[in-house]
Amino acid sequence: MDLKALIRDVPDYPSEGIIYRDLTPVMGDPRAMQFITETLSGHLSALRVEALAAIDSRGFIFGAPIAATLDIPFIPIRKAGKLPPPVIGTDYSLEYGIARLEIGTSALDDGQRVAVVDDLLATGGSAAAGAKLVAELGAVVVSTTFLVELQFLNGRLNLPDGIDVYSMVQY
Amino acid sequence: MDLKALIRDVPDYPSEGIIYRDLTPVMGDPRAMQFITETLSGHLSALRVEALAAIDSRGFIFGAPIAATLDIPFIPIRKAGKLPPPVIGTDYSLEYGIARLEIGTSALDDGQRVAVVDDLLATGGSAAAGAKLVAELGAVVVSTTFLVELQFLNGRLNLPDGIDVYSMVQY
Repeated sequence: MDLKALIRDVPDYPSEGIIYRDLTPVMGDPRAMQFITETLSGHLSALRVEALAAIDSRGFIFGAPIAATLDIPFIPIRKAGKLPPPVIGTDYSLEYGIARLEIGTSALDDGQRVAVVDDLLATGGSAAAGAKLVAELGAVVVSTTFLVELQFLNGRLNLPDGIDVYSMVQY
Repeated sequence: MDLKALIRDVPDYPSEGIIYRDLTPVMGDPRAMQFITETLSGHLSALRVEALAAIDSRGFIFGAPIAATLDIPFIPIRKAGKLPPPVIGTDYSLEYGIARLEIGTSALDDGQRVAVVDDLLATGGSAAAGAKLVAELGAVVVSTTFLVELQFLNGRLNLPDGIDVYSMVQY
């Protein structure tokens, strides 16, 4: 299935010179969503993933059906102040400024094999922060999985060494 | 299945006197998520829902597996500034201040039967705003559907007349 045909390019958004990849037409196509869920579930099943940690908030849209398909726990990694205590958090750099992601301290078990899922890999900051939080809870990050990867931003270089990085669509 | 047994009460969060209902243990229980998805999908299937509009961001977690089960389009209703143009938006009141929700202008078809899905019905402000946006696009809101309803806040009174309001767990 040609997923790129469903991804809408929005030039000069959110700022001049940037081409924004709009995934809402993908979300609105149930056949495409089924194809994505099956492909990513198959990939993560082969890695014997035991829990799925999805990044707020578009990671939730792709992650929740994968967790359902794999019959594994869904763990939200959320922006600062959105999860009730107790949480742990980590800061990461954005193009302008700092953002913070958090996870509930009892969200994962020691040694549990976890995939971190988001819609899009850009510079890798949020995925790296998510992976760090999962590891801080004593679980094992076995994959960071995305629908789209912006290869020219080299986000893979910011992700932990030796961990699977998987994407279905590359730009 | 006793979903309340999985919902964690967090007293005095986010402010004194409030009991926060933490749904993350529900998300982390695949059996519970399957039960919720099946129950809400069955309810919406009987209403002949043709598209699911979910509210940013916990509505995504419950809405995406329902849309997958029903094989219907998933439409995100997002906080201001998160969707690329063109969008329409509407403001609604929070306890302190104003928030804004937006939807893509081409997200829905004229006359399409739509369910608005969120995790929790409190005062109904965000669900009412979501329903308003769906109606502004010419689609028909046939249900506002939630996992949890805080009945003492009378959120139903803020939702449009004559539309199904459904929740699985009430406080």
